[in-house]
Amino acid sequence: MTEPVVGMVGGGQLARMTQQAAIGLGVRLRVLSDSAHASAAQVIPGTRVGDHRSLDDLRAFAVGCDVITFDHEHVPGEHIEALEKDGVACRPGSKALLHTQDKWIMRERLAELGVPVPRFVPVTELADLGTPVVLKAARGGYDGRGVWVCDSASEATALAERAGVSLFAEEHVRFRRELAALVARSPYGQGAAYPIVETVQRDGICREVIAPAPGLGLDAELAERAQRLALSIADALDVTGLLAVELFETPGGLLVNELAMRPHNSGHWTIEGARTSQFEQHLRAVLDLPLGDTTATAPYAVMANVLGGDSGIYERCGHVMAHDPAMKVHLYGKETRPGRKIGHVTALGDDPDAAGERARKSAAYLSGSV
Amino acid sequence: MTEPVVGMVGGGQLARMTQQAAIGLGVRLRVLSDSAHASAAQVIPGTRVGDHRSLDDLRAFAVGCDVITFDHEHVPGEHIEALEKDGVACRPGSKALLHTQDKWIMRERLAELGVPVPRFVPVTELADLGTPVVLKAARGGYDGRGVWVCDSASEATALAERAGVSLFAEEHVRFRRELAALVARSPYGQGAAYPIVETVQRDGICREVIAPAPGLGLDAELAERAQRLALSIADALDVTGLLAVELFETPGGLLVNELAMRPHNSGHWTIEGARTSQFEQHLRAVLDLPLGDTTATAPYAVMANVLGGDSGIYERCGHVMAHDPAMKVHLYGKETRPGRKIGHVTALGDDPDAAGERARKSAAYLSGSV
Repeated sequence: MTEPVVGMVGGGQLARMTQQAAIGLGVRLRVLSDSAHASAAQVIPGTRVGDHRSLDDLRAFAVGCDVITFDHEHVPGEHIEALEKDGVACRPGSKALLHTQDKWIMRERLAELGVPVPRFVPVTELADLGTPVVLKAARGGYDGRGVWVCDSASEATALAERAGVSLFAEEHVRFRRELAALVARSPYGQGAAYPIVETVQRDGICREVIAPAPGLGLDAELAERAQRLALSIADALDVTGLLAVELFETPGGLLVNELAMRPHNSGHWTIEGARTSQFEQHLRAVLDLPLGDTTATAPYAVMANVLGGDSGIYERCGHVMAHDPAMKVHLYGKETRPGRKIGHVTALGDDPDAAGERARKSAAYLSGSV
Repeated sequence: MTEPVVGMVGGGQLARMTQQAAIGLGVRLRVLSDSAHASAAQVIPGTRVGDHRSLDDLRAFAVGCDVITFDHEHVPGEHIEALEKDGVACRPGSKALLHTQDKWIMRERLAELGVPVPRFVPVTELADLGTPVVLKAARGGYDGRGVWVCDSASEATALAERAGVSLFAEEHVRFRRELAALVARSPYGQGAAYPIVETVQRDGICREVIAPAPGLGLDAELAERAQRLALSIADALDVTGLLAVELFETPGGLLVNELAMRPHNSGHWTIEGARTSQFEQHLRAVLDLPLGDTTATAPYAVMANVLGGDSGIYERCGHVMAHDPAMKVHLYGKETRPGRKIGHVTALGDDPDAAGERARKSAAYLSGSV
C-alpha cells in the first residue's frame, strides 16, 4: 500500500471530522494533539501527543507524513517556516497562514489587493473612526475572544493601554447579516467554491449556518461576487486547502471580516448538504488531488451548534432521534463546559425556516437548555 | 463522558465504514481484528488483535464494551452463546445469527414461517429437483464460494461425495434479476426499511447495486411486499441491527436467497444515497437508539465495487476525481489481490443508466481493468 499520509496539527473536532473523510478516501490521517483524549485523538490511531508550539514536536510529527496541515491557527509561523526549510510540504504554507494569524497584516494585505474591508487604523488613531469603535487583538483571538466593542474613544484608549497585547481599531460595521464564502484551492491552482451561506453569531460564537444564504438566490450576482472574491483571495495569498472568508453584508456591499485556512464551522453543513464535504475537499486540496463537486444535495441545509450541554448528552441524543429521525447529529466526544462547542446538528429541507426551526430545537435540546 | 462503546468483531471494510458513522454519533467503536493492519484496524484506535474463533479472545474483547456486534458471520455460535451467558449484550444474538451461519437451518426456518424460498432438499434427494441443480455448503460460504451449479444429477452426487463438508441441494432458480431488501430492527422492536435495490452479481460476487431497483417504482406493490417480507423476517428471527435479505425476482414472485445480519454490500450506496447510512443505522439499532430516516437523497444511486486493482490505485484515484468530480470514491486500505473487494464508488443521479455508466467506468478504471 502506498496510501498518502496527511498529518494534521491539532486534535479538535475539525481533525475528528476530517478522519471521516480520510477513511473514505483511503488516506491515512495522523494528528499531533496536546492530549491523548482530545476529540480527534479518540478516533485516530497513532496520535502523537505533543505541543504545537514546540518545533521539536512538530519535526518529530512530520516524519512519515506526506503533507502537514492544521486544524487551528496557533502554530507559530517561524516553526512552519522551519518545517518548510526542512522540505516538509505544509499546506497551507507559512506565508499564507500568516494572514490568519495576524489580523493587522491580513487587513493591510487585503486592502492592498483592493478587497473591501472595514476601515482599520492603529489604536493611536481610533478617534478617527467615531463611536462605537471595535478594538481587536492582532493575534490569538477566536470565537469572539480578542474583540471588544467600545462606546467611546476614551474607553477604547484605556482598554488598549491595559490590554497587554497588540490591538488595532476598526470601524463598527452596521451589517444586514453575516455571510461566509468557503472555497478550496489546490497547489496545482484548481479552485472550487461552495454556495454562499448565512452565519448567525451570538456573543461572537457561531450558532447557526443557513446554506445557501436565503434570498441570495434573488441576488445571484451578490453570491457570485462573494465566491469570486474568496477565490481571488485564495489565489493572491497562495492558499492551499480550504479558505473560509467571513463577510459582512452591508447596504454598501460586502466587507471581508475574517479568514480561516482550514475546515470551518460555517462549512459543517457540507457533510450532508454538499456532494463533497469540506473535510474531503480539504484533504483533496492539500494532497493536490482534483477537487470535488460542491453542489448542494438539498434546497436548504441548516446547521446549529450544540454549546455547553451536560453529562446526559447521550440520553438527550435518543430523544432528538426519536423526535426527528432525519436530523443529523454530530457529537465531538468533548467534555461539556458552558459555551463550548461539543457538537452540531444539520437539518436538510425545502424551506430554510422550517429546517432552521428543526435544527435550533434539536441543538437547544442537546445542549440542555430546553 | 459516558459515550457508549460498541465492540465489533472483525476488522474488515464493514467495521472500517462503521467507524465513519461512529465518529459522527460520538460512539466509541472498538474492533477485534486478526491483524493490526486490517482495513478497520488502520482507522480505529485501540484495536484488539485476536482470533474470533477463540472464546478467550472474545471474552477479553467484550470487557468494557456496552454492546458486541459483528462484521462477518464466522464467530462460532457456541461462543456467542457463552458471551450471552456471561451477560454480554450481543446484537444480533446467537439465535438470530444461526440463520446466517447455517443455510440449511435458514431455509428450514424461513419455509416454516411461510417465506417463499427456492425448493431445497438433502443431497440424497437431489434428483427430485431436475437439472441444472445447485449444491450449497450449509456453512462457511461467501462471495460465491460454497455454491456449485451442476448440469447433471450424477455430477452433483459425485461432487457431494467428495466435498468433505455438509451440502444440500437447491433448485436452479431462473430469475429475472436479483434484489436486496435492507432493514434495521432495534431491541425495542422498531423497524426501518430502505428502498429495495437491484444487485448485479458476476461469478457470485456483487459488482453493482442500483437503488432503488429500476422499474419497481411502477410496481410499488412488489417493492412494498419485499420490504414487509424483510421486516417480518427480522421480527420472526428477533434480529437486532441490520438485516439484508437477498432476493430472486422470478416470474412467479419473490424468493429469498440469502440473509446477512450486518452492514451489507448491497447497502453501501446509503452512505451518500440515503439520509441515514446503513452504518449509522446499524449502530443506532444495536444501541437501541431510535432508527434514522431511510429516505433516498437522490432519484438514483448506483454503487460499483472495485475489485482487484494494482499498486497504482492512488494515482488512478486522481484520474477518476478529475474525470468525474461528483463520483464518491471509497477505498478500504486493503492489499490488492485479484477478485478482492478493495473499494467501491457511488454515483448519484436522475437516471439509473447514466449513473450506472459513470459508476461502472470509475470502478473499472480504479481496478486497473481499463
